[in-house]
Amino acid sequence: MSRRAVVPLLSLGLDPAAEQPLFRQLYGQLREAILAGRLGGGQRLPSSRLLAGELGCSRNTVLGALDQLLAEGYLEGRRGSGTYVSSVLPDELLTARRGPAAPADRRPAPQLGARGRRLAALSRPGERSRGGRGTAFVPGLPDLAAFPFDVWGRLLGRFWRHPPARLARHGDCAGDPALRAAIADYLRTVRALAVEPEQVFVTSGAQQGVDLAARLLLDAGDRVWLEDPGYVGLRGPLLAAGATPVPLAVDGEGLCVADGRAADRRDGAAARMAVVSPSHQYPLGVVMSLARRLELLGWAREAGAWILEDDYDSEFRYAGRPLAALQGLDAGGGRVVYLGSFSKVLFPSLRIGYLVVPPGLVEPFRAARAALEDHPAATAQPALAAFIAEGHFAAHVRRMRALYQARQQALLAAAGRQLEGLLLLRPDEAGMHLVADLTPALAARLTDLEASERAAAAGLVAPPLSAYRFAEGARVGAPSRQGLLLGYAAVPEGEMERAVAGLARALR
Amino acid sequence: MSRRAVVPLLSLGLDPAAEQPLFRQLYGQLREAILAGRLGGGQRLPSSRLLAGELGCSRNTVLGALDQLLAEGYLEGRRGSGTYVSSVLPDELLTARRGPAAPADRRPAPQLGARGRRLAALSRPGERSRGGRGTAFVPGLPDLAAFPFDVWGRLLGRFWRHPPARLARHGDCAGDPALRAAIADYLRTVRALAVEPEQVFVTSGAQQGVDLAARLLLDAGDRVWLEDPGYVGLRGPLLAAGATPVPLAVDGEGLCVADGRAADRRDGAAARMAVVSPSHQYPLGVVMSLARRLELLGWAREAGAWILEDDYDSEFRYAGRPLAALQGLDAGGGRVVYLGSFSKVLFPSLRIGYLVVPPGLVEPFRAARAALEDHPAATAQPALAAFIAEGHFAAHVRRMRALYQARQQALLAAAGRQLEGLLLLRPDEAGMHLVADLTPALAARLTDLEASERAAAAGLVAPPLSAYRFAEGARVGAPSRQGLLLGYAAVPEGEMERAVAGLARALR
Repeated sequence: MSRRAVVPLLSLGLDPAAEQPLFRQLYGQLREAILAGRLGGGQRLPSSRLLAGELGCSRNTVLGALDQLLAEGYLEGRRGSGTYVSSVLPDELLTARRGPAAPADRRPAPQLGARGRRLAALSRPGERSRGGRGTAFVPGLPDLAAFPFDVWGRLLGRFWRHPPARLARHGDCAGDPALRAAIADYLRTVRALAVEPEQVFVTSGAQQGVDLAARLLLDAGDRVWLEDPGYVGLRGPLLAAGATPVPLAVDGEGLCVADGRAADRRDGAAARMAVVSPSHQYPLGVVMSLARRLELLGWAREAGAWILEDDYDSEFRYAGRPLAALQGLDAGGGRVVYLGSFSKVLFPSLRIGYLVVPPGLVEPFRAARAALEDHPAATAQPALAAFIAEGHFAAHVRRMRALYQARQQALLAAAGRQLEGLLLLRPDEAGMHLVADLTPALAARLTDLEASERAAAAGLVAPPLSAYRFAEGARVGAPSRQGLLLGYAAVPEGEMERAVAGLARALR
Repeated sequence: MSRRAVVPLLSLGLDPAAEQPLFRQLYGQLREAILAGRLGGGQRLPSSRLLAGELGCSRNTVLGALDQLLAEGYLEGRRGSGTYVSSVLPDELLTARRGPAAPADRRPAPQLGARGRRLAALSRPGERSRGGRGTAFVPGLPDLAAFPFDVWGRLLGRFWRHPPARLARHGDCAGDPALRAAIADYLRTVRALAVEPEQVFVTSGAQQGVDLAARLLLDAGDRVWLEDPGYVGLRGPLLAAGATPVPLAVDGEGLCVADGRAADRRDGAAARMAVVSPSHQYPLGVVMSLARRLELLGWAREAGAWILEDDYDSEFRYAGRPLAALQGLDAGGGRVVYLGSFSKVLFPSLRIGYLVVPPGLVEPFRAARAALEDHPAATAQPALAAFIAEGHFAAHVRRMRALYQARQQALLAAAGRQLEGLLLLRPDEAGMHLVADLTPALAARLTDLEASERAAAAGLVAPPLSAYRFAEGARVGAPSRQGLLLGYAAVPEGEMERAVAGLARALR
């Protein structure tokens, strides 16, 4: 190969308009040529002057690229005799890098772990709109047009244009002290929790709270009582922690504790934890009765088990007043870890939630948090603390409560006009969605999964209730309750009629 | 008990100045009295009129509290005969809630899991200042005064005062597409990575990256090669995933692959993963040679193992050019997961980092991310994307590189004047800290742990090198290298002399 021919042969070529500096372009092309074997070990490179001339660039550009390749060991310089491709590059690597031409030399990439394969295979109900535009009937989606982003953007700017040094440095592993104090105040006042700010851990949402609690409180193989149907987001963290799920039915008073005791006896081992949403069971909306709450706490005390209380949308209650949280009933018992999130009350991409842990778990949770994730991201925390402390949060919740109550009524009214014979809806005193049962007539034609797919084809999100069952899609034994989740919080009243009409058409 | 006496006896009393509404105060006090047994099951309450008179509040306040307690089942109303404390409250709960007076009835709170106890027992080197004020010599702390917070605050305000709807709704589980594109561009141009935006996963930092990769790629018991000494933040996620650490020595060319092969032969099992920091080994600062990089890739290919490449401070290189990343050398091999973080380059509380995964792992990582944490918090992501795309990031890195280089020189000069006979410092072509070896004379008097404690007593952070050893504090066999980490990036040149003088006094 003539030295002059090396440039076209290796298809070297520089683009002055590209973002990458010229020397870096040349470096990359030469390195690629060496790794792919087009420039072989021991081969001599043309002089920098010659290369510069061929490439139409300055000699400094060429020297910059060659210096880098020399420093990295791809090239060797012999004083007075030019620059050569290194012979110490292991040949097998060069061969392996020839690409598709030599596939026999390629070993397959390593495999995921067994845990990883199971994690990767978890599916979630289609709760989010696919196109990303429509809001009917996405469960748990708040009304984003109603959120005071002007205030929010102003608060962010206020804290970050001239942050105090403590804000920019490493933070407390449990979160911004101002935010934890604001959360503790709120929970004490509104939810009757027994909580001091140091018991509050800021998380990226309920899921991360479950993830932290599961890894700290459970060992592989430990049994965990779960509501069935229930919040699907629990499953990843519990699976990753190696827990054994014990799905239990939910009746009109909440999780069936008696079924759990029976399952424990059958399996010869008490569960180590129960995960419940007593304020407003997800997705059914049942409120756990006081008697059932006390029964659950009594079981936990006997069994030495933990209770994870997910209080995910306790803010939106339209009638009556919420029952006291399990955490408050257990005060002093040290058995309840309480989970909350701002994603549904404010906006989903905020990703701020919190854990309230018993006093005895504060130090272990601090150590584990620091060991696993250092501390939560600071950007939104001071703004959220001010949003709560300055009253914007309470005002927003009040406004949204009135708005969502009106939307639930609009959904019920439209359903009464349009969905007769298809879906059965009942009012709910709380929440952001209703469970619409398939009528026997519709259930004779469609499963809820099929009904949900028809809605999706019409641009409507209406996840099937069966997707929240623990054994996803399984319909062995008694036929499972067939229904659709209809989120109404993000659907303006004026659009409700049209959206419900679309659903009726899709199901007819 | 006379009905009139119930108010003082139960120490009921309302505070009109308190934040909590009056009815809520009364509710809480009555509930507490019932749970504590001061109001027994079946006991009749005074009339609402009487209570209101005694408490000096309106009858509506009393009715609000009683309604709530009736709804929750603490009270029962019998038509025409007043309101009674419910008799269905399980007695054992009431007894248990009597508090310290009846300790024999209290069962102990449940225990942490075995994994939880090990996580909670992990300790970290004292890398952060305790008082929170001083910056000398905190390793990895950037100069916060030099960060353009005015730009940053403005960008945050720009995106969040009027966010497009897509920003506020649930985001992509891998992170904001604009930020992932900006990161991919940056890594291709500056670090010669082979990367498309869809391979980039936004994380809350390197630790979360390790946490995700370990749970997806490893199973309990899998062996993992680690640099010793090395980044302590790895240990929590690896421990939580059940991995078995295989600590390996680091020589002048980086991780000793030959030692790893010997360990694998000895233990009869190949490691499943190696975690390395080849650009600038943490904490020693060694650059892994090209030959060693190829040797490591060759081993991974033979063993079917993964490589986690932690490129934690590759931005701050003062001489020479960085070697190409392992990720780029492996292109197409699908064996390298690349980790980076913005916390050291921008500011620590930002908590944004990234993973670059091979194309074959994109789908499994998406599923696992969604199953474990939904998606990363959106607040800072669009601002960071704009910060990079609009050139602020590159300009900041350039300025910091010059600043930190001058600070390293100032540290070396001050050390030459003041630390003779105590510590040995050598220049480093990269990074934000130097490892200062204890001289034999000092080592005869103090361990590095003791030297670090003396520095801490003088208000200086100087973590002991031995704290980065895998067997923390263990000094069996050959005595380990004794040194202190001295971070210089956050110490202004004008303060360096005084800080070094303080260190010299502390060690003398």
